[in-house]
Amino acid sequence: MRVECEKPSFLGGQNMQKQVNLLPNEIPTKWYNIQPDLANNLEPLPPPKGEQAKNLPNLMIGTCLEQEFSDQNWIDIPKELLEIYMKAGRPRPLFRASNLEKKLNTPAKLFYKSEFFSPTGSHKVNTALAQAYYAKKQGIKRLTTETGAGQWGTALAYACALTELECTVYWVRAVHDWKHDRRAFMQMLGAEVYASPSNKTEAGKKLYNKNNKHPGSLSIAISEGLEDSQNHSDAAYTLGSVLNHVLMHQTIIGLETQKQFEKIDMYPDIMISCLGGGSNFGGFVLPFVGDILTKDKQIRFIAAQSQSAPNLQGKYKYDYADHAEITPQLKMYTLGHQTDFKPIIGDGLRYHGCSPILSLLRKHGYIDTIAYPIDEKYVFERAMTFMQTEGWIPAPESAYSVACAMDEAMKCKRTGEKKVIAFNVSGHGFLDIHGYKEVQGLK
Amino acid sequence: MRVECEKPSFLGGQNMQKQVNLLPNEIPTKWYNIQPDLANNLEPLPPPKGEQAKNLPNLMIGTCLEQEFSDQNWIDIPKELLEIYMKAGRPRPLFRASNLEKKLNTPAKLFYKSEFFSPTGSHKVNTALAQAYYAKKQGIKRLTTETGAGQWGTALAYACALTELECTVYWVRAVHDWKHDRRAFMQMLGAEVYASPSNKTEAGKKLYNKNNKHPGSLSIAISEGLEDSQNHSDAAYTLGSVLNHVLMHQTIIGLETQKQFEKIDMYPDIMISCLGGGSNFGGFVLPFVGDILTKDKQIRFIAAQSQSAPNLQGKYKYDYADHAEITPQLKMYTLGHQTDFKPIIGDGLRYHGCSPILSLLRKHGYIDTIAYPIDEKYVFERAMTFMQTEGWIPAPESAYSVACAMDEAMKCKRTGEKKVIAFNVSGHGFLDIHGYKEVQGLK
Repeated sequence: MRVECEKPSFLGGQNMQKQVNLLPNEIPTKWYNIQPDLANNLEPLPPPKGEQAKNLPNLMIGTCLEQEFSDQNWIDIPKELLEIYMKAGRPRPLFRASNLEKKLNTPAKLFYKSEFFSPTGSHKVNTALAQAYYAKKQGIKRLTTETGAGQWGTALAYACALTELECTVYWVRAVHDWKHDRRAFMQMLGAEVYASPSNKTEAGKKLYNKNNKHPGSLSIAISEGLEDSQNHSDAAYTLGSVLNHVLMHQTIIGLETQKQFEKIDMYPDIMISCLGGGSNFGGFVLPFVGDILTKDKQIRFIAAQSQSAPNLQGKYKYDYADHAEITPQLKMYTLGHQTDFKPIIGDGLRYHGCSPILSLLRKHGYIDTIAYPIDEKYVFERAMTFMQTEGWIPAPESAYSVACAMDEAMKCKRTGEKKVIAFNVSGHGFLDIHGYKEVQGLK
Repeated sequence: MRVECEKPSFLGGQNMQKQVNLLPNEIPTKWYNIQPDLANNLEPLPPPKGEQAKNLPNLMIGTCLEQEFSDQNWIDIPKELLEIYMKAGRPRPLFRASNLEKKLNTPAKLFYKSEFFSPTGSHKVNTALAQAYYAKKQGIKRLTTETGAGQWGTALAYACALTELECTVYWVRAVHDWKHDRRAFMQMLGAEVYASPSNKTEAGKKLYNKNNKHPGSLSIAISEGLEDSQNHSDAAYTLGSVLNHVLMHQTIIGLETQKQFEKIDMYPDIMISCLGGGSNFGGFVLPFVGDILTKDKQIRFIAAQSQSAPNLQGKYKYDYADHAEITPQLKMYTLGHQTDFKPIIGDGLRYHGCSPILSLLRKHGYIDTIAYPIDEKYVFERAMTFMQTEGWIPAPESAYSVACAMDEAMKCKRTGEKKVIAFNVSGHGFLDIHGYKEVQGLK
C-alpha cells in the first residue's frame, strides 16, 4: 500500500514523469561511509601521513575527525541536522531532461539532480551544515576557513548563520576584490570576510605589510584560517572538500537519488559529475559505488574535468593538499601540489589533487575521466543548450557535468542504446553570469 | 489510508515539520477563477472600458482572452503544461520559519511559500509558461513584451525557450543599460532584447532618432511591444500582471499552499505578500479568499507595499494600465496612470494601479495594506534577519512580504496570540545583491 501511495500516478505512467521527488519525511536518515566497503572489497584506504597528521585532533571538529576514519558503513544523521537539511530545501528533485533528450534526438534517458536549489548556490551546504552542527554541539563558538572561488566560504557563512556560530572567511584577494556580490552575500549572512593575505594573522601580516594589494593564494588563505583557529581555543578550522567525512556528508545527494530512481523503477547505466576536489562527485556516486562493490550492479562513472587541472590523469601518490605543505600528505591522484594551473571560469575544478576515496576507486578502474578544453567554449555552449531546453542555469563547474552528459547522450544516439544517464548539477550560475558572458562573448 | 501515507511521520509529529511539500503527482490540476464567486457573493467584476477594450481580440492570445472573462470556477491546467510546471520545479515547498520564530521569540507560527525556487528567480514563470503554452497551441511563432525591472522579461524568455517560441523583449533603457547580468541571462535563454526606445518600431524610432540614449519608460516599451506584435501576424503581445487570467495562472501558488496546510492540519489566520500589480499576491491568496467567500473561514489578508506607490491607498476608479493610454481602462485602485514614483530597489512594487480583482476585494474590505518607507532600510534589515535565520535571500520585492510577516509576528508576541501567519517569498535576490549592498551600505 505504501508503494502505491508513493508512485507517481497521474501523468500516464512513470515514464511521463518530468520530476521525481521525495517528501521531507522520506529524506535519508543516515550517511553512507564507503570506507569499510573499500577495505572489504578492494583494499583499505591509505591513511594520511607526515608530521602534520598527528596534529589533526587539534585542528578538526571532534565528530568530523571520528567520521574521517570511521569503520561504520552507515552513520546516523542527527535529527536536528535533518531538520536543518529540510530548511535548506532537502530533499531536492531529480529531473528528467526530457526537453534536452528531444533536442538531441537521443534514445538515452537523461536525469539530473538539482543541487542548484541550494540556498547559497551549491552542494557545499550539505557538509557546511553538518560541520557547523557538530562544532556547535562541541561548544565551538566560531569557524574559520579559506575560500577560493567563494562557494565554500558562502556555504560556511550560511551554515554558521543557521547554527548561530560566528564565521571568519579568508578569501584569496585576487578573487575577493572583484566578486562584489558574493562578498556582500557572505556579509549579509553575518560572516567576517577578509581579503587574504590580511593583517589579521602573523602569516598574513608578513605578506600584507610588504604589499597590501598582494593577490594571495589558496595556500596563504589556508595558513591564515588555520592560524586564526589555532590561536583561539573557541574556534575551529573547516574544509569543504577532499576529506572522507566531507564526501560522506555529501552522500545525502546520492542516497536521495537512489530512492528517486527506486520510485520510478529505473537504475542508471552511467553517472556523471564534475570533479575538482571530489565532494559533489563523491556525494553523488558513492552510494551507487556501494551497490557495485556489494551487489550485482554495473554503472559507468565519469568525472568531468578541465584540461587546466585534470587531476585524475595525474599520479597516484602521497602529496600535500595545499601549496604551503601545511596539511598532512594524502594518498591521491595529483598533478603536484605546487603546480600552477591556467585560470578558468569553472574555478572550483582547478585543484591539483583528488579525494583519497575517489583516487582509490580510480586506481581500481571504477572511475573514468574526461578533461575539456581550457577555453571552455565547448562546455559553455552545451550549458546554454541545457538552459534553453531545461531552463536552469548551471554553475560554471556544473556546466562540465552537463556537457559530459550530452556527449554520452550523443554516443547513445549513434549506437541506438537507451541508456539511463544520471548527472549532478551541483550548483546554479546566478552569481556567475559574468563568466558566461565572457566565454560566450555576450554584450 | 492515503492520508496516513502522506502525513509526515518521522520527526516527532507535524509541529516539528520544517518543510511541507507535495509530490509532483499531487500538483493541483486546475486553476481557481474567482470571478463567479465574486459575482455571486459580492458583485460582478467591472469590465474594462474604452475604445481599446474592443481591440483585445487582436492583441491577446485566444485562450487567455477567454480566461480573462470566464465564468467557470475551475479551469483545467492542460496536462502538457502541468509537465512543464514540474520541469520548473513545481510543486514548491512550504517552509516553517522556525528559526525566525525563535529569533523573534514569538508565539506565532510562521510559514513561507518558496516561489524563490523559480528557474528565473520569480513567480512570473507561472503565467509566462501558461501564456507561451497557449500561444504555441494557437500557432503563434513569437511573443513580444516590455519589461521594467526585468523579472517579467526573463520569465517570458524562459517560457519561450521551453516551448520553442521566439521572444522579443523591449526593456526600459535606463534599467537595461545597467542590469548586465539579467540582460545576458535573457540572451542566454535565446531572447532578443532591445533597449527601449529602440529603432525596431515606429514608436521607438521617433524617440531613438532624436536621442539614441533616451532612458525610456514602461509605457514607451509597451508601445513598442504592442506595435511589434500588431505588425507581425505570427506574433502576440503578453502581459505579466494585473489581468484576471494572469492572476488565475498564479493561483497554482495558493492552491499548493492550501494542500500543504491541509497536510499538517493547519489553516492560516493571516496571509501576507508584497503587491505591485498584484500577480503574486493574488496567486497566493485568491484560493483562500474563495474559502472566505464560500465557506465559514476567516483570514486577514495584508498587502505589503512601498510608500513610493501605495496603490491600494489610492482611488477606486477607471484608469489606464499604462502611462501612454494604450490599454483599455480598468476599474481599480490607482494613484493615477501618469503619476511619477520615486525609485526604490523593490522596483516591481512601483506601479500605479492594482489588479481589478484585488481592487474589488479591497473595496469590500477584504484586503488590508501597509506601505513601508521609501528608503527601504526598515524592510531590508528585516530581510537580512530572515536570511540569517532561514537562509534564503529574498528578492527586494519579497523583502516587503518578509518585513510585514515579522511585524505581525511581533504583534503576536505582545498579545500572546499563537496565530498562523503565511507569507509568500515571491522570488530570490541572487541577481539583486547590489540593491541590498546599496541600502545596507556594504562594501
